[in-house]
Amino acid sequence: MSEEAIRLLTQQVAELTRRMTVQEDIHSIRTLQFKYGYYMDKGLYDEVVDLFAVDGELHFMGGIFRGKAGLRRLYCDRLRNSFTDGHNGPVYGLLADHMQLQDIVDVGRDGCTAKGRFRAFLQGGSHETKESINPRLPLQWWEAGVYENEYVKEGGVWRIKTLDYYMFWQADFETGWAHSKPYEGHFFAKTYPEDPGGPDQLTDRVPGFWPETPLVDFHYNHPVTGKPWIRGRSDGRRKES
Amino acid sequence: MSEEAIRLLTQQVAELTRRMTVQEDIHSIRTLQFKYGYYMDKGLYDEVVDLFAVDGELHFMGGIFRGKAGLRRLYCDRLRNSFTDGHNGPVYGLLADHMQLQDIVDVGRDGCTAKGRFRAFLQGGSHETKESINPRLPLQWWEAGVYENEYVKEGGVWRIKTLDYYMFWQADFETGWAHSKPYEGHFFAKTYPEDPGGPDQLTDRVPGFWPETPLVDFHYNHPVTGKPWIRGRSDGRRKES
Amino acid sequence: MSEEAIRLLTQQVAELTRRMTVQEDIHSIRTLQFKYGYYMDKGLYDEVVDLFAVDGELHFMGGIFRGKAGLRRLYCDRLRNSFTDGHNGPVYGLLADHMQLQDIVDVGRDGCTAKGRFRAFLQGGSHETKESINPRLPLQWWEAGVYENEYVKEGGVWRIKTLDYYMFWQADFETGWAHSKPYEGHFFAKTYPEDPGGPDQLTDRVPGFWPETPLVDFHYNHPVTGKPWIRGRSDGRRKES
Repeated sequence: MSEEAIRLLTQQVAELTRRMTVQEDIHSIRTLQFKYGYYMDKGLYDEVVDLFAVDGELHFMGGIFRGKAGLRRLYCDRLRNSFTDGHNGPVYGLLADHMQLQDIVDVGRDGCTAKGRFRAFLQGGSHETKESINPRLPLQWWEAGVYENEYVKEGGVWRIKTLDYYMFWQADFETGWAHSKPYEGHFFAKTYPEDPGGPDQLTDRVPGFWPETPLVDFHYNHPVTGKPWIRGRSDGRRKES
Repeated sequence: MSEEAIRLLTQQVAELTRRMTVQEDIHSIRTLQFKYGYYMDKGLYDEVVDLFAVDGELHFMGGIFRGKAGLRRLYCDRLRNSFTDGHNGPVYGLLADHMQLQDIVDVGRDGCTAKGRFRAFLQGGSHETKESINPRLPLQWWEAGVYENEYVKEGGVWRIKTLDYYMFWQADFETGWAHSKPYEGHFFAKTYPEDPGGPDQLTDRVPGFWPETPLVDFHYNHPVTGKPWIRGRSDGRRKES
Repeated sequence: MSEEAIRLLTQQVAELTRRMTVQEDIHSIRTLQFKYGYYMDKGLYDEVVDLFAVDGELHFMGGIFRGKAGLRRLYCDRLRNSFTDGHNGPVYGLLADHMQLQDIVDVGRDGCTAKGRFRAFLQGGSHETKESINPRLPLQWWEAGVYENEYVKEGGVWRIKTLDYYMFWQADFETGWAHSKPYEGHFFAKTYPEDPGGPDQLTDRVPGFWPETPLVDFHYNHPVTGKPWIRGRSDGRRKES
């Protein structure tokens, strides 16, 4: 009788421990991504790169940056030069607020991989009193997008495995999204080392920016029906004709 | 001695299981609402209706839409025609970002009902290159509001029981909330089927929009004092005289 | 044999109970802060003060307000007079939306203290039809900042111990953050009672506002490397020369 009770309790405690770990993992991952945002706000690119797994990668503007070397090439060389004049930390008169919200984190059955969808909402720009203003950035802009990221637990610590940001729109502060010009930001056309600041690989993904309105595939099934998301659905990419 | 220890452990495990389920339920419900936002962003109205319970309802613009038939009448007929030209999915040049944030979810003692307060922050509008622009929508606008929703767990799955959105303000991108005109959006005056796209019932709730600043009753007691929220408090509805 | 099994189960249940309590505490604290935001939206200053511990404090604009008397002096006297004409609740034509997001909550080892970083994003202003418009407030503005707060659990209930808001920038709706004027808001120069609405103590913290871009120290170590945050780093405060 007590042997049986002990066997049942042991099973229940094991199952509770598994469920507890999932909730703790979700909390770790959502705050990991939120911390990414706080570091990006302030140009702390060294700290950003440290959030990634050793074999982590970043999908950005048509390129894939792989491993710590690739990540440093993008964050610590290219972005740091564009935004904070090569300084690891904020600079006078440069705003790059990276709000992170609306977290959907799902931990895999294996307990050591996870996927997360987040929304980004950005305020960027330069103050009129800043001496050197990067001519490739809008003077002041709003930006919105979605991440579909992957995370990995190594040595008991969650890290970013793949950061994949889909920028949806940018709008000049003065004129708004009704009048956004076609996106003129950078797309990578060559890989490293041919392009010294280029990615390790080019993606074959066709980028779509506002006024196109592409869908970013959901990593999760519909939460009520359980239906998987079907890729390749009609997605607002074609211009009306 | 061990009988007593086993009895105590059994009680503790039961209590832990109950507490674990509450935390899991909170996580399920907050992400359910966040997924609502991601679907609304992209005009996925079929997926939105699937988030509701069979007897779910929507309180919207002075009307209550009941059950799947009522919900489809609002989301899949009226909104889909207004926003995405009858297409289930995003269309070129139409922005309807529905940020969902600041979640307060409380699961009932019964474990199968819950209430949730969320904030919405929206960016809507049409791009100047969109061919057919809905004349009943502002060209580009900011919007903010609060939900006080109810959820129900059926078959182990959380669903939206009642979605109740209180739109607080809309502001044209160009002129802002200091100059918002009195809200001219739709209010339902007739029910279905007299109004083919109308609600099943009209509410007696007096809507209040900015520059009025109505309170939306809190579903929760004050978190520190435990005092219940008293309805009918002075709430910024009366214009200064 | 069963004695040993029971001893192990008892340990495991105690550890699970501890972990469960941490997750519940995180949930309580993040929603406590979110409720602060909902009350601030609507000028519910009495309810705001009730969120604090008896010896709670607020760091605000160069001053520290201590205990319920100090908190009421700031929230219920000064802010309530500035924003809602002395009324506890919203008033016609005054917008003060306090979005709260990007929560990082860490509970101390003692289980009764905690720290939390949050982001605030505000929309404030007066409608053109409001009769008495406070001349010390911008007509309509965007604002962003970060909290680094402390919380305390007393009698089983989490309360705000220290609310410490770092306002980063304000921008007029019309002209944006590229053209923000130097911050002209209030700084406290005298303490109470010499200044009847003043703080109990002045801080020696040098405030820094946009176009300066000060770092707000992180209460947490780097989530992957575990490195503690080093205070006093170069932080965008110095104007370019």
